[in-house]
Amino acid sequence: MQALCLEKKQLILQDNIPIPEPLASEALVRVHLAGICATDLELVKGYYPYTGILGHEFVGEIVQAVNAPERIGERVVGEINVACGMCETCLRGQTTHCERRTVLGIVNRDGAFAEYLCLPLKNLIPVPASIPNEAAVFTEPLAAALEIQAQVTIRPTDQVLVVGAGRLGLLIAQTLVLTGCQLQVVARHDKQQQLLAARQIAWIDENSVQSRAFGVVIEATGSTGGFRLARQAVRPRGTIVLKSTYQGDSSINFSALVVDEISLVGSRCGPFAPALRLLENRLVDPTLLIDDCFPLDKALDAFERVVQPGVLKVLLST
Amino acid sequence: MQALCLEKKQLILQDNIPIPEPLASEALVRVHLAGICATDLELVKGYYPYTGILGHEFVGEIVQAVNAPERIGERVVGEINVACGMCETCLRGQTTHCERRTVLGIVNRDGAFAEYLCLPLKNLIPVPASIPNEAAVFTEPLAAALEIQAQVTIRPTDQVLVVGAGRLGLLIAQTLVLTGCQLQVVARHDKQQQLLAARQIAWIDENSVQSRAFGVVIEATGSTGGFRLARQAVRPRGTIVLKSTYQGDSSINFSALVVDEISLVGSRCGPFAPALRLLENRLVDPTLLIDDCFPLDKALDAFERVVQPGVLKVLLST
Repeated sequence: MQALCLEKKQLILQDNIPIPEPLASEALVRVHLAGICATDLELVKGYYPYTGILGHEFVGEIVQAVNAPERIGERVVGEINVACGMCETCLRGQTTHCERRTVLGIVNRDGAFAEYLCLPLKNLIPVPASIPNEAAVFTEPLAAALEIQAQVTIRPTDQVLVVGAGRLGLLIAQTLVLTGCQLQVVARHDKQQQLLAARQIAWIDENSVQSRAFGVVIEATGSTGGFRLARQAVRPRGTIVLKSTYQGDSSINFSALVVDEISLVGSRCGPFAPALRLLENRLVDPTLLIDDCFPLDKALDAFERVVQPGVLKVLLST
Repeated sequence: MQALCLEKKQLILQDNIPIPEPLASEALVRVHLAGICATDLELVKGYYPYTGILGHEFVGEIVQAVNAPERIGERVVGEINVACGMCETCLRGQTTHCERRTVLGIVNRDGAFAEYLCLPLKNLIPVPASIPNEAAVFTEPLAAALEIQAQVTIRPTDQVLVVGAGRLGLLIAQTLVLTGCQLQVVARHDKQQQLLAARQIAWIDENSVQSRAFGVVIEATGSTGGFRLARQAVRPRGTIVLKSTYQGDSSINFSALVVDEISLVGSRCGPFAPALRLLENRLVDPTLLIDDCFPLDKALDAFERVVQPGVLKVLLST
């Protein structure tokens, strides 16, 4: 099969990769559509030393499942963390943090920029018929957006700032506005501003952010500059949610966090079921983010497209 | 009156300072006993550019109070943050974060290493007769220890680590053990270990701390090394409470916080009423920490004594 591989920070489109063979507990999935996300770009830069097929956002169809033949033909999205189910962390119910986990296209498990992938049956979640592939492919990042509310209580009375209106920031904004909170989103590009305005979400320029005003600030820029702005914007006793992963360390004044009693909350993967409910109810529309779709054999072009200024989501169809 | 002043990072014992004149809303307090804390030492090092009389932990007696003559003679401790009561932060009930606050011996308000001090009447809290001065003088740091539980839920089933068994760490340990949690305290010095053992609190060597095991870790060392150990010890989805203020920035890997979904919680001043209840019930005994007591005119000797290795609390009597 064809697949886009990462080897020593090089993207290589390969044609002769054998179709993977699922374990008895797994299914073989024919990938229909996959999305390129910031984590993929960070992996290419070397944020984490991954070698293998890239990609973790996908929608596809189960085509082989020894232990669940009744699921063949099911349209599915996939929880990307594959947990051992037996360690202390798993037994505590925190399977996304399993110390022995593999992660689709990120840690020791071939990913979704391929014609086929394997995942455990329990990771594969059926997609309601009313959700088109172009929306379902966003289930994973939408779940990551919802992880914020799984970790931090957002009250309808809260003043909330999202710093960054990129791929993830725009999904986060669409989920947070549903709480009724007083939401503002820092958006640089015209297109981001227009997308937000079209959803009746208030956007502001980074120079107009009120200092020490927001009870909750979401940092979703993927840069240290984003944290600086978040730190200025949060009010004493407020919370900054960190959603970006990027390479390298940042400098921070711990004493100022203590004096202002700020909380920082790291936030990663989230729950798929509520993400699918919001897509089914059309309360979130991620398809607004789609800029382009390339066939898998043009995957290298897709990676050139996605880093152009103002480009949001680029999909790969396989 | 006599007072210990800080000017350009120099401690100066002065003899001819006029007795302060309280505003109508304030009282004049005759200080009986005051404690030297890490924040005082950081102020001397220049952590914050304070000029004036140092000191914020005290117990004393109201000797003048125009608007509340019935309180004259009351033995009191004092909430150190003096809030405007009118700004948005105050109206939200977060008076310790008032943007216009002065702070006794720390921000624009003469402190407790003096024969007399002024504080608003509402900041002065009566001390129950059964609490001796030697215990009451710890009310402020004990309240700061309790702030942890005002911010973070500590469950009896939690595995909790306190990094640092200095002045504040030992008070924190005494409050956390009351929750029934599985508590361990990283202690370097023999005396710290003996004090913990005497309270039936488990201490460990810093090289024996289990990695990624603790749901809650309290950083109370006052050094960046303490944070490094806390970060190693906290389990995924766990919380690190930051209790130290020290000069300078620290380097931190935000992505690792995101991947492990760690929360950092800055924690400063706490509630006085529960601190006084624990002292009254003798559930906490801070007097174990007292190493020495100097008269105010030997305050410079006291500051030399308090930085000697293994020394915990040094008091000044006035």
